[in-house]
Parts: sequence; C-alpha cells; structure tokens
Amino acid sequence: MKRLLLAMLMFFVMTGAASADGAPMSEETETCLECHATLHPGIVQEWKRSGHAKFTPAEGLKREKLERRLSVEQVPDKLANVCVGCAECHTMNAVKHKDTFEHNDYRVHVVVTPKDCATCHKVEVEEYGRNVMSYARTNLLENPLYVDLMNEVSGTHGLQGMQTTLSPPNGKSNADACLFCHGTKVEVKGQRTVESDMGEMEIPVLTGWPNQGVGRLNPDGSMGSCSACHTRHQYSIEMARKPDTCSECHKGPDVPAYAVYKVSKMGNIYSALNKEWNFDAVPWRVGKDFTAPTCASCHVSLLVGADNEVIVERTHQMNNRLAWRLFGVVYAHAHPKSPNTSIVRNKAGLPLATELTGEPASDYLIDAEEQKERRQRMMAICLSCHGRGWVNGHFERLENTIKTTNEMTLTATKILVSAWEKGAAKGLKQNDSIFNEAIERKWTEQWLFYANSTRLASAMAGADYGVFANGRWYLSKNIHEMLDWLHFKLKEK
Amino acid sequence: MKRLLLAMLMFFVMTGAASADGAPMSEETETCLECHATLHPGIVQEWKRSGHAKFTPAEGLKREKLERRLSVEQVPDKLANVCVGCAECHTMNAVKHKDTFEHNDYRVHVVVTPKDCATCHKVEVEEYGRNVMSYARTNLLENPLYVDLMNEVSGTHGLQGMQTTLSPPNGKSNADACLFCHGTKVEVKGQRTVESDMGEMEIPVLTGWPNQGVGRLNPDGSMGSCSACHTRHQYSIEMARKPDTCSECHKGPDVPAYAVYKVSKMGNIYSALNKEWNFDAVPWRVGKDFTAPTCASCHVSLLVGADNEVIVERTHQMNNRLAWRLFGVVYAHAHPKSPNTSIVRNKAGLPLATELTGEPASDYLIDAEEQKERRQRMMAICLSCHGRGWVNGHFERLENTIKTTNEMTLTATKILVSAWEKGAAKGLKQNDSIFNEAIERKWTEQWLFYANSTRLASAMAGADYGVFANGRWYLSKNIHEMLDWLHFKLKEK
Amino acid sequence: MKRLLLAMLMFFVMTGAASADGAPMSEETETCLECHATLHPGIVQEWKRSGHAKFTPAEGLKREKLERRLSVEQVPDKLANVCVGCAECHTMNAVKHKDTFEHNDYRVHVVVTPKDCATCHKVEVEEYGRNVMSYARTNLLENPLYVDLMNEVSGTHGLQGMQTTLSPPNGKSNADACLFCHGTKVEVKGQRTVESDMGEMEIPVLTGWPNQGVGRLNPDGSMGSCSACHTRHQYSIEMARKPDTCSECHKGPDVPAYAVYKVSKMGNIYSALNKEWNFDAVPWRVGKDFTAPTCASCHVSLLVGADNEVIVERTHQMNNRLAWRLFGVVYAHAHPKSPNTSIVRNKAGLPLATELTGEPASDYLIDAEEQKERRQRMMAICLSCHGRGWVNGHFERLENTIKTTNEMTLTATKILVSAWEKGAAKGLKQNDSIFNEAIERKWTEQWLFYANSTRLASAMAGADYGVFANGRWYLSKNIHEMLDWLHFKLKEK
Repeated sequence: MKRLLLAMLMFFVMTGAASADGAPMSEETETCLECHATLHPGIVQEWKRSGHAKFTPAEGLKREKLERRLSVEQVPDKLANVCVGCAECHTMNAVKHKDTFEHNDYRVHVVVTPKDCATCHKVEVEEYGRNVMSYARTNLLENPLYVDLMNEVSGTHGLQGMQTTLSPPNGKSNADACLFCHGTKVEVKGQRTVESDMGEMEIPVLTGWPNQGVGRLNPDGSMGSCSACHTRHQYSIEMARKPDTCSECHKGPDVPAYAVYKVSKMGNIYSALNKEWNFDAVPWRVGKDFTAPTCASCHVSLLVGADNEVIVERTHQMNNRLAWRLFGVVYAHAHPKSPNTSIVRNKAGLPLATELTGEPASDYLIDAEEQKERRQRMMAICLSCHGRGWVNGHFERLENTIKTTNEMTLTATKILVSAWEKGAAKGLKQNDSIFNEAIERKWTEQWLFYANSTRLASAMAGADYGVFANGRWYLSKNIHEMLDWLHFKLKEK
Repeated sequence: MKRLLLAMLMFFVMTGAASADGAPMSEETETCLECHATLHPGIVQEWKRSGHAKFTPAEGLKREKLERRLSVEQVPDKLANVCVGCAECHTMNAVKHKDTFEHNDYRVHVVVTPKDCATCHKVEVEEYGRNVMSYARTNLLENPLYVDLMNEVSGTHGLQGMQTTLSPPNGKSNADACLFCHGTKVEVKGQRTVESDMGEMEIPVLTGWPNQGVGRLNPDGSMGSCSACHTRHQYSIEMARKPDTCSECHKGPDVPAYAVYKVSKMGNIYSALNKEWNFDAVPWRVGKDFTAPTCASCHVSLLVGADNEVIVERTHQMNNRLAWRLFGVVYAHAHPKSPNTSIVRNKAGLPLATELTGEPASDYLIDAEEQKERRQRMMAICLSCHGRGWVNGHFERLENTIKTTNEMTLTATKILVSAWEKGAAKGLKQNDSIFNEAIERKWTEQWLFYANSTRLASAMAGADYGVFANGRWYLSKNIHEMLDWLHFKLKEK
Repeated sequence: MKRLLLAMLMFFVMTGAASADGAPMSEETETCLECHATLHPGIVQEWKRSGHAKFTPAEGLKREKLERRLSVEQVPDKLANVCVGCAECHTMNAVKHKDTFEHNDYRVHVVVTPKDCATCHKVEVEEYGRNVMSYARTNLLENPLYVDLMNEVSGTHGLQGMQTTLSPPNGKSNADACLFCHGTKVEVKGQRTVESDMGEMEIPVLTGWPNQGVGRLNPDGSMGSCSACHTRHQYSIEMARKPDTCSECHKGPDVPAYAVYKVSKMGNIYSALNKEWNFDAVPWRVGKDFTAPTCASCHVSLLVGADNEVIVERTHQMNNRLAWRLFGVVYAHAHPKSPNTSIVRNKAGLPLATELTGEPASDYLIDAEEQKERRQRMMAICLSCHGRGWVNGHFERLENTIKTTNEMTLTATKILVSAWEKGAAKGLKQNDSIFNEAIERKWTEQWLFYANSTRLASAMAGADYGVFANGRWYLSKNIHEMLDWLHFKLKEK
C-alpha cells in the first residue's frame, strides 16, 4: 500500500494535477497576491508550481551538498523561513535599484536582476559573471565592427538615385532584433500614471523593456538576466535543462546549435524518449535520469554516475568546458581569456581575436594547456556513454573541421580584399562599412552562417545540418558566387 | 479511496489505455461501422476517442454555459440522444449536397462541410464565415495579382531560345500547392465503379479531392473545412489547441508564425512543459490549465482567470483580436473590413489594400477605433501574465517594426519601379507579369518573406527568427542585391 | 484490485520509474559490467531499459508469430537462455571481425555489425541487404559523378589569382559530412595503448570511427549499421518508430522527408497526440496503437487492423512499398532494380538512371507491373484511414508532380547545357567538374533541393514545405536566375 501511495503521489506531481500546498508565505507576499493573483493569474499559477513557492530557503539548505539548489551557506534571517514569493525578489536590494518605486506602501522594483538572485544563488551568479554571455550586450555595442554590422542589418535602408542610404536602427528596432537576445539597457525615464482595476497607479517608465537578454544592463548596474533560461515565474529546472529554452537564441543560421542538436543522435534520442526521463533531479544522474545529453548536460549541469560520483561539476561559466570559440567570429579560435571580448585587438588594431588572415591574437586567448583542461571536462561527459576511441575520433574531426572551415573563410576573405583593392567595393581602407555591399554580405555569410554551422554540426555530430542545410554546400558555393560577383563588377566598371 | 479512483480514471483517460464505453449509437451509424470498422480501422478508432463518440448532443447541452462545446440551444430531436457518428454527419443535409450518392440504401456524402457542422456549432461557423480564412480560396483566385503569382510559382517553365515560356499550372498542381491550404473547389464529375472488399460500388468522382484547405469550396456551396484544424475523426480539442496543427499552413517563410512561436519564450515554455497542461478543459483556465499561450490561446479560445472570470471570449473570426494585417500583403496595413479581400481596389485600381508606395486604401480597412478594440482584446490576454509596462513596450515595438519594414519594402519597390522605367524589366505598365523576372522575385521576397517574417517575429517576440533566420539580414541584403542586379542589367543592355 | 495493480504496473513501465529486474545474464556479460557499469553509466543504464536486457532469446521465441521480434526459428544454445548483453554482441563472430582484440582475456570487437545482429534478426538483415540504404556508401563512392559532387562540396577551395583551386576533402572531412550518414569504412590501423581507470589497455585504432552510417563498411566485411535507427544501447522500438530518428539523415534540403512530414496532417496529429500512443506493440495496430502514421508505419513496420489482420508485412527493404525514386537523382524515375545503383549506366554512358534529358535507363529500373505492386502495398496503408477516392486522388497528384518537376529540371538542364555549349561554363564535354561553377550549383539545387522537396511535399501531403519553404517558388525562381547568369556571363566574355 505504501508503494501505491508513492505512485499516487508521483502521478499527481507528474501530471501537475495537484501542486504542493506550498511553504509559509511572508505577509508582504500575501499582500501582493491579494491583487495580483487575479490580475495576472498566469504568472501566479506558474509561481505556485515552482520550487520557490514550495520550499523555504532554510529547507533547501538542509539538503545534502550535491542535492542543494542554493549556493550560499546561509540566507538573511528574514528570508530563511518563508517561501520565495513576489515580495522577496521584487523588493530585494531596493536601494540599489533605480527602478524602485512606491507601490501601495512597498518599495518595489520590476526588474529582478542577477544581484537579487545572488542572495541565494551566489556561486551561479559569480560564474555567470565570467561567462561571455553576461557581456553579450557589451561585446556587441563596444565593438565598432559589430556595431557596424548591427546598423547595416537592422537600420532602415532608403534609396537616393541608384545608391542606398542608411538610417541607423532606433532603440525599438535594436531591442526587437540583436538586443532581444544580447540584452537591452533598462533605464528609468520618469514615471507614468496608468489606469488599473485598482485605480490610478504611478509606475516607472522603463526604456529597453521588456527584455530578458543574457547580457541585459539592469537598473541596479548588474549585467544579465537569469530568466533568459530560468524562465519566470516557474523557474523550472526541467525547462532550463531542455533544449527548447536554448533555442530562443541559438537556432538561427548564425548560432544553429539547436538545429544541429535536433539532427544529432543525441537530439534524436532526446526527442523520442525524453518523456521517460527525470529532469528535476539534482544532481543529474547519467543513464538513470537521462540517456542522452541536452544542451544543459554538456554545458552547465552537475552530472553524476551510478554511485553519485561526480562526472563534471556544475558551471554557469559555460565556456568552462569549451576549448574553442566556434561561432560569431570570423575565424574559430581558442576561447578568449576575458568574457569582455570588446577589449581584444589584433595586430592590425581591429577588435577581432584573429587577424583578417586568420592568425590568432594569442595574448587575448587561452593557451593550449587551458584548452586541454576544458576539452577534458567535456570529454569526461562523452565518456559516460562512449568509448575512448569514439571520443578521440570525434574530437579529431572537430579540430579538422575548425581548420578546413577557417581555410574556407580565408579564401572568401581574399576575394573580398581583392574586391576592395581593385575598387570593386569599398571597405576598411576606404573607411567604409564592411557590411553594406552584396559581396560583403556574402563574405559575412561565409563565416557567420556557413563556417559556423559546419563547425557546430561537427562539434555536436549533426552532419545533416552541416552539409546541405546550411553548411559545406554553401561554404563552397559562396566562393564561386563571390568570384562571379567580382568578375561582373569589374567588367561593369 | 474516492480520490484514488479518480486518479485511476484520470490515468486511463490520459494514457488512452481505456476509452469510454461511448454514448448510444444510431442504427444508421451502427450499420456504417459494420463494414467500415474493418475497412478503415484508423479513422474508426480515432472517432472512438472523440467527444463525438462519447457524448450525445443532449448531454453536451446540459453543461454550464462556459463549459458547453455546442453553440446552439437545441439540436434536432433525431440527433439529440445518439452520439455523433458516421451517419449523423455524412447524411446531414443530403439534399443540399451535390456529392450525395446512394450507398447501401443510404444517401451519403463524402465531404462534410461547415454547414453540416453548424447543426451543433452554429456560432463558430458564423464567426468563421467572417474570418478571412473562409475566403482563403476566393481571395487568391479572384485577385488577378495573386493569380499571376500562383501561375508563375506553380506553372511549368520551359525554354525557347534564351527566354522562358510558361504553361500555367494544371488543377492537380494547384491542389498540391497553393490550394492545398487555401482550398480547392470540390465538385462532382460523374460516378465511378470501384472494386471493394464488399463487391462493386458506385462512388462519385470528385475534383479537387482530397482537400481540407481553410477556404475550400464545397459541393453544398459552403466555404471552408472545419477539419483543417479540428482534425477528423478524433476532433481533439487538444490537437486544435496545439501549435502543430497551425504549422500545417503557417510555417513556411511566407507565414512563419509557427517558426517564430517556437523560438519565442512562449513557445519555449510550451515545448518544455506542455506535457503537464490540460488541453481539454473548456473554458481554458490561464495558469491552471496552461502557463504559456499557444496559437489558439491568443487567436481563438475562450480564456478564463482564476475565478472563471472571462478574459476573452471564444472567436472563430480570428482577426477579431488583430489590429493589423501583417503577412501576405505588400505593406502591412489595418485589417480589411470584409473577409473578402478580392473586392479591395487601391487608387491605382490594383487589387491591393495599399498603394504600391504603401499608403493604405483606407475605405476598405478598419479604422483606428476598431484597431484599438482589437488590440485591447489581445492585450487582455497578455496581461494575464505580464505587467502593463511590459505589454505596452511590446506593442510599441510591433508598431515600430511595421513602420520600418514597410519602409524597407518601399525601398525595394522603388528599385523595381526604376527597373521597369529604365526598361531593365517588364512590369505593370508593360502589362507583363510582375513575378516572372529575377528582380521581381527578389521584390516579392522582400515583402512576402522578409518583411513579413520580421513583423511576425516582432509580434510574437521570436527575435531569433526575425534577424538572421529569415528577417532583417535578408531585408537589407536583398536591397543591395536588387540594386546590383539593376546595375548589371543596365550595363548588359 | 487486479485492475488497479495493472494500472500501477503500466504506470511504472510508462514512466520508466522502475525497470524490470532483467533476464539472466551470462558470466561474460557480468564480467563486462563489473567495470563498464561505472565507466560508461549512460550506455549500461540504456541497455538495462532495453528488451535485450529484459528478455532472453528463448522467451522471445515463445511468442505468437506476429508478436515475435526475432526472425530466426532458433538461436545458438549458448545464447538462448541469457539476456543479450555486452558479451553476446561484442564477442559474436570474433574470428570474422578484423577489429577483434584481446581485452581482459576476452576476444572483443567494438563494431557490432548487421552480420552479428543476424544471429537473431536474420530476415531483417537480409531485407536490409536488398535496401538501397545498405549500399549508401557504395552508391556514392563508386559513382564518379557523386564523387565529383562530394569533392566539390566538402573539399577545401583556395584562390589562385582570380580562379578557385580545390583540395579534395580528407578522410575526416568526408566522415564528418557525406559519409556521416552514408557510412564510412571502418578499418583497423594498428593498436594503441591508452591509459584508463583500470590501467593501461591495448585497443585497436579504427579509421572512420565513430560512425553509424546506414551503408557503413564494417571490419567483418558487412555493410550497414543497425544502430543508425535502432539506437544503441536501448534499441527502443519506440525510438525506431518515431520520426526523430529518421530526421538524423532526412531533414536537410536534399532529403527533407522529416520537414515535410512535420507540416503534413499526419505529422500534425503525431506531434499533437502521440503521447497517448503505444509505440512498443508488435504487431502495430492501426487506430488502436496510433492514429496517424510515422515514417516507420509507412516504410517499415508490420501493421495490423482491428482483428489482427495483416495490412502490410514488415520490411527492411524500404523501397518495397515505393514505386518511384524521388530524391538524390537528377530526374525522378522508377526505382532501380538493384540496391547497388553504381552499376547503372544511361545511354550516354553516365552513371545515372536517366539521360540528361530525363528519359529513364529502363533496363536498370523496375517495370510498371512492379511499380503497381509496390504502390498497392503503400495504398493499403493509406486505406486504413482514407477512402478509395481520397487515396487515388493523392497518388494522381504525386504522379503529376513527378512529371512537372522533371520538366522543371529539364529546363534547368537545357540552360546549363547551353552555357556549356556557348563556353560560358565548362562541363561534361570539357571533362570538367559539373559542380564547380555557380550555374552548375544552381542546376544542382534545381533537382537536388527544389524538385526533390516539391516531390516529397507531394508524396507526403506537406504542401507548406513544397511551395515557399523549399519547393516551387525556388524551382521557378532558379530558372530566371540561371538565365540571368548566362546572359551576364556571355556579356562579360
């Protein structure tokens, strides 16, 4: 009968038909819910399904070390024995929040930030600060070449005679395009009175809002948005561990990680069988809880083996297991040392981690030793399911693909430079945008789409994507088309 | 123990391991099943899982108003106390059906139509009649510009010397292409004798069959096919509410709503967590039954809050919550007043809701007041999970994106018109197709693919799709390539 | 109470919360697991979920014929009463395996092959040997035209003056691209000493490893890899039957079967409702176990009706139900007689099953009679859920689409031949690659991507993919662009 009751319980938990009664609630949160449970039934119900609603921090801290979901030893007394509700997060660090406003006698802020989350999840927030993702906005906006790219992609192009004109994108366009994922700057620009069911309300006017970009610049000065992956307000670890979450920013041809994963054997297993897996277990047991990795397994999660032995430690510095920077760059190269890549300069003075001809700007990049360590962390995960020969063979292919795709980018670069030199296009030397002519766009696609996709397909064994979908076919076709363009253009002159 | 039994019951229902015993069956339907249960085991079993098999209309009418799935007050006596089986639908309104034929002493028709469904679902059918989708076929075939597009896309192109020739698509090609979704005309063209396991049978020969396009022209004169979304013969409300159903017609680059949704945060939540949701509840409770919207939530369903208060009424006139027409048109504009858009004419006499330069043909379009009402219906749904500032910010971005994408289409149009004027291509003035030259195709991609995709990505917050996948990158690249084409062509002349 | 227990049992089985205790294990397998359960927890746990771990061959042979998963009448005594564990497969036929090596006193091989699997699954392996997929590697590498294609796609292109140069792809590039799906040649190239947790080990060095391509050339001389679809080590029939598995090789624009399926009504039903289906039943009951077909239903599985009457026999010769060869070929044609297509020669002496102008090389192709038989096998499946008129209409459209897409390829071919004849490009007559110029790439896309996609969309009723996603739009646009290219090029000369 005991087993029966257990099954019943599991059944209810699994189907969500019944949520736990929840942990004790602070008075403040109770007050919030009086109105907001009706005003925003969606988020309140989501939150009720969350661990935040079901457990107090004190309960969380009592767990075994490997099972713990908080990374501090202690939380402030006031928070310890109540669930993590509306008030706990939205009034946290009120003084530091420029978006704090008076709201029914509380000092509330809209934008919950990594600094707020660090109250309980300190280690994760620190690690994330060393993650290139926390600098996703900075690395775009402080790099003049990427700003040029953004403007050309998202600006408004007009026509003057037989030439195009460009109006750079306004703030809304950027927030709706690159900065959607990279992160906006959320700032308070005055107050506004709104009508609500509860009467008139003064609320702050926020620029760059809404946004949950990974490198968001917050009103308290912090960078990042935890809810990019830990989607509010359920904060489901299941969701963070499923590849759908990553797909929000990693599916397009510039970073097709999700698309590649889906056609890999790992992705196939996931898609076909994940309904039988346990996505909620901490630590996450290879084989028992899941039989093929998701994005999180390889890049973030704490994984253990059959006897709870640690295979890899949890990390929110996601390049911790990555030897190479494969995408978003002209040539693949060893990972940058600093998450702030806008400080990088190559010998030519360009804000790139390689020369235009591909040689790495080594001073800014991790060395071979560090690459080896990172690779070994990743290999330890692979070895959970594959033999040594398999794993070695896989990584040898990736290194080969990095080399050949870089060569294909070099050929495209030579054609582009030739076009600049022959006056068929205007580029760096003419101090012109390098993204505003057809051949420059083709050159960009060579590295940003095709070389990138080919490498990701190699890295995650999703060959179908890397050949005809968006990889090698175009990598070589594009070179023929770039040359043709140059021939036509020179003839035209 | 009662709770235990309830759990067992839910378990069986959920797993489909046991289907209900079913409601009483008419003699006619029993007769049908005698043969067809063996001949077509698939559809018969599907139907057995359906509400149609499990409940009688009389039972359905006894439910609380919000829970009711029929929208008439009464059904014909003959139908009230039997389940909705084969005979009930396939012999309904026999006289009006030109596809009615004698079949084992019954007068049966193959094509069940909205008029048949209206017997029980009157309001939905009426609403659907005001939905632009019911005119999906008409709006294509009665608009000479879209007919030109269809012919150029689906026709057979030959070669004569150094020029292409065109044979317009035959009926089968159209049925396999545009009309697959937009709807064929299903007509009876005589009878045919077929061999069957039950001996020789006379069956009607139908043109345009099979088809379940949303604007199908039926043998009883009605327009539409309910089974486009309410897939026969299970008529699963779960399926109609899941985005997969919409993807059948709304995934390609011309209407990539599904592709955008999948990379939106809403789509991520859905993909990761929907297995815990209740897709069968009527009314559909925000937060309790689901924690992120699907296509149906925002565009169709009756949604209620925590205390069953109505957030938005059900509608099958799907533009009821839409202020703008975003796709399938040269420039985004306020929604047309009439679902029949083939009646629209701009000042230049073209069957378009805007001038070629973008100004709206306002007489045919809803006014700002109506736009506001529709927007507010949609916003009420957003507010279930988001604050006012979030929602306002989102819609301001959409309006901005509508403006900038229209500008990008205008630039492309100027280049095209310039090509026509300079004799580099033949278009409207020369009374030539506007879709049969490379530059015209590029112009079409500018609005039909890229502007459209960028707008949908903005409307549903799926930025990843709207930048590099099929949006802004191409919107701007295409302008450079159109200009290059024009330069090359003028040089060639 | 009995029913209750049954439900409990089903619950545990379904959720994977409890796996069966497993069948008796051989001593050898026990020895393997002593180390490998810890070294590779992932695969060992996967295997524990498999039928191989839960049942002995002897138990499997006791089942009713239709339910049986082994296709031999008897297995070697030694294997009959133990589960199919590590040792059973990895020491099978040791003598024939060139990759056999000494490993802790056992003679073990890494690469398990179809010949090994045939011990229990003889019929499937024989059928698979008649499947064109078992020749996937041969058909690529023994066909000079496809080798040319491979080299141009995956080779490294350099620049010499204003011309490209080509270095053919190395083995790693090929293994990471075409041969990933088509199959590598796995050969032993010496031994290597590796450090392991258990001390130093001698392991064979394998070329072309890892690989699970369908036409893999194995160290025992056999062709194929069963684990391409029957993913080791769970060998889940559920996975083999789900379309995700097929997507690994059939999603890209050259074979977009999965992409088409997903937007078909069948794919919609699957995506929305498959969680309620039984993917483990043998035989597979239409309607009861599933209500819409997956790839496996139509192409592989044994299907039965309501009373267990056989609708179609199981086959691993997958063209058994296919009248036409639709993809990977310049023109669609009747299926080749032999799975080894590298032996085919057209009248012009080219290794193609049609002339360059489309006429079939009929001697090598199945005749109309055989086509009819195959079509009828497929139609029997369709008829499980559709009426005769529906099914006929569907197949008539496919035949029409085959005809029109072939015509569109012919037009593209004429333009290409004209370019060759006029000296604008170098091709067959000049003994030059036919894939190394922009216009040749466009010609290739005409058949390999667009005609192919349009046909698959027709064959599986996924029109959304076949019009704007990757079909008719490009099929016609491409012709305009090929002609423009030719005009520009001739002008340039």
